[in-house]
Amino acid sequence: MKEKITELIDARKFNNLKEYLQSVNSADLPTLFDELDDEKKLIAYRLLSKEKAAEVFAELDPDVQEKLINDFSDKELQNVISELFMDDTVDLIEEMPSNVVKRILKNIHPSDRKIINELLNYPEDSAGSIMTTEFIDLKENMTVEEALEKIKKIGLEKETIYNCYVLNISRKVKGIIDLKSLVIAEKDTIIKDIMETNVITVTTLEDQEEVAKMFDKYNFLALPVVDTENRLVGIVTIDDAMDVLQDEVAEDFEIMSAITPNEDTYFKTSVLKHAKNRIIWLLILMLSSIVTGAIITKYEAAFASVPILVAFIPMIMGTTGNCGSQTSTLIIRGMSNDEVRLKDYVKAIWKELRVAISVALMLGIANGIRILVQYDDMKLAVVVALSLLGTVVLANFLGCSLPMLAKKIKIDPALMATPVITTVSDMCSVLIFFKIATMVMGLEINV
Amino acid sequence: MKEKITELIDARKFNNLKEYLQSVNSADLPTLFDELDDEKKLIAYRLLSKEKAAEVFAELDPDVQEKLINDFSDKELQNVISELFMDDTVDLIEEMPSNVVKRILKNIHPSDRKIINELLNYPEDSAGSIMTTEFIDLKENMTVEEALEKIKKIGLEKETIYNCYVLNISRKVKGIIDLKSLVIAEKDTIIKDIMETNVITVTTLEDQEEVAKMFDKYNFLALPVVDTENRLVGIVTIDDAMDVLQDEVAEDFEIMSAITPNEDTYFKTSVLKHAKNRIIWLLILMLSSIVTGAIITKYEAAFASVPILVAFIPMIMGTTGNCGSQTSTLIIRGMSNDEVRLKDYVKAIWKELRVAISVALMLGIANGIRILVQYDDMKLAVVVALSLLGTVVLANFLGCSLPMLAKKIKIDPALMATPVITTVSDMCSVLIFFKIATMVMGLEINV
Repeated sequence: MKEKITELIDARKFNNLKEYLQSVNSADLPTLFDELDDEKKLIAYRLLSKEKAAEVFAELDPDVQEKLINDFSDKELQNVISELFMDDTVDLIEEMPSNVVKRILKNIHPSDRKIINELLNYPEDSAGSIMTTEFIDLKENMTVEEALEKIKKIGLEKETIYNCYVLNISRKVKGIIDLKSLVIAEKDTIIKDIMETNVITVTTLEDQEEVAKMFDKYNFLALPVVDTENRLVGIVTIDDAMDVLQDEVAEDFEIMSAITPNEDTYFKTSVLKHAKNRIIWLLILMLSSIVTGAIITKYEAAFASVPILVAFIPMIMGTTGNCGSQTSTLIIRGMSNDEVRLKDYVKAIWKELRVAISVALMLGIANGIRILVQYDDMKLAVVVALSLLGTVVLANFLGCSLPMLAKKIKIDPALMATPVITTVSDMCSVLIFFKIATMVMGLEINV
Repeated sequence: MKEKITELIDARKFNNLKEYLQSVNSADLPTLFDELDDEKKLIAYRLLSKEKAAEVFAELDPDVQEKLINDFSDKELQNVISELFMDDTVDLIEEMPSNVVKRILKNIHPSDRKIINELLNYPEDSAGSIMTTEFIDLKENMTVEEALEKIKKIGLEKETIYNCYVLNISRKVKGIIDLKSLVIAEKDTIIKDIMETNVITVTTLEDQEEVAKMFDKYNFLALPVVDTENRLVGIVTIDDAMDVLQDEVAEDFEIMSAITPNEDTYFKTSVLKHAKNRIIWLLILMLSSIVTGAIITKYEAAFASVPILVAFIPMIMGTTGNCGSQTSTLIIRGMSNDEVRLKDYVKAIWKELRVAISVALMLGIANGIRILVQYDDMKLAVVVALSLLGTVVLANFLGCSLPMLAKKIKIDPALMATPVITTVSDMCSVLIFFKIATMVMGLEINV
């Protein structure tokens, strides 16, 4: 598709290009625009129909948006912005450098400017920051016919018309009715009689991740957002909720892999920024492994007399770390699905204890047999089996406790998953292993 | 809420209970039912209105569904099933034991039975297996008024009416029109003139994860599914797509934490099943750490003469593993967003090489200074710094290459993330470290 556009522009066949662009699905255009040369971008963009232009603009990469805005006349900028939904305008303003923001605000209609300033003031990651203020409001004494008339008149400018909100005179939500019910109902039915009165709302300050999870739980297409006095101020639509869920997942994956989360995509992040996002955790984890190293040094006399002990360090450390991250991942996923709640702590610990013992038994037996076959050393087999029992139980205990503790003191449980658990379990596993080894084998340690 | 229901049942205040249940939001009922005693479940369920009953039933846990079905009369079962959407009926059948399935199929209307048998035949994880066959189809020469009339008549039984499909006589998709456009348009407009003709469809055999990702990309509410002859056979709705995305994410987390993926939730999985899901990878990873141990044994003479080398094993292994999982996580996320494609391999490797060198330099310098201060041992500082350079470059190389290789040969890249990379990087890091140590320090090795 990119080649076709380049070709048509080079041949100056603008009419053909206009037709061609009209035939491409709007959803595919943003990716296409991202790939075009800057100059061709502007030419192609100017050939889009007005609605398509706004739709495409909202989905472009921020740097492409910035380039286009710099090339726009004030008139063109006004056209684009007046077609954007409020939440997309807010996103745009948040992404642009200050000189571009000034130009955008200058070209927004004053009444919209007020709303946008309010939206910009909601805390990052709150429901208020992702909601749109364009929704359909109805009155409870309207008939279905009147409601449909109203929707027909004002619907085009609304982000969704599939959920409509029935408000009283002080703009409090009395009920909710979806377009399906309206279309199916008889024309003279009164809204009050068919609206759903159990309305689930969120407040403007609710965390966006919690809001997004409600979409998953309740199968909503939109969720009403109310202010502290319970007046409807906006709605969050399902597409924005899905974006939030995807971002949160990406963040969790990064934290669990000991990376400082980053909003930019892989190739858009510079080498130095990548290095910076990774080095912090590497340094922290390195410090912790230095402590582990120091613990090992303390047992120098032990492995000097039984050098084979050293060969088991990777296995003990690795298994402990793996058990810890297995448990923490399951607990974190369980908490994010609301299946594992803080009050289930004892139940979860009891489960993990039994899992740990089952797993440790199997690992201990497997290792014991191997050691007996390979080294014919009963004491070593006992040391390794006992160490595994101790470290696996500890790892599962930590993997279960630390994420729940994190939630309790309101820090991100994902942080506890790989980075912190690895650190703690590394140190403890080596300590347990050498402690058991010196005891069982009657070795000396350097004090 | 649970207490209130229990109280009302115990007091035999069934009318009050009926009213109360009607006032609870349907979305909250399934969780509530899961918590009730078996006997109370049935009582409360029988007091639900017919529509609410079907809606709640579809969302209940499979074991609760099974218990209810076993208590239902044939008449009650027929009522529930006739109210369920096709895809929910299929889900139900897939979850139930064979005796319950027989009873369900016996109580399904023969015409539906045929459709359900077809749906059951689609491969697991395909678009066909998650689609519903209940959609609105229109003809292109209808007027908007006729279309709305048709929707009014048949809409109630359809899972969504927000996307309507315009079919020709052989049921091929000619266009798509959303309810918003229909409600906003003038009554005498012909569908053909306002429908969107660039229709994006998927085939019944398309992977469900790919389908779900398209919702994210295109902001659809539903996606049409066509057979090999391009005839419309069903639609996938956004709620099912969200479920697929959530399941796939959970699976990725589990694989990355070396757990065999499991569809049941944390507490519903038995201790033995938990142990089984975890032990397989633990054994595999243990085998690999035995190899790492063997490599260390080979250098016994080296650490016998310089015991401090042992203290650095955790740091070198840990840092290598962390770098590898950082890189693989970023690459896997990039691939799942379609930003990192196979053809970008060289570009990604070049980026990772530079990141690795930046990170290794910082780590090497930090460690070098520490070693000089703590041990005043220049050779050791050089060994550790060089080893870090070698292992970090290798880790980033593997972290970038293995997931992309996995994608190329069509296995799950997440599998490559933590488990495989840890294994390979553990061995290589120890080998590199001791190789450099013996060379720089002029140590002997046991051959």
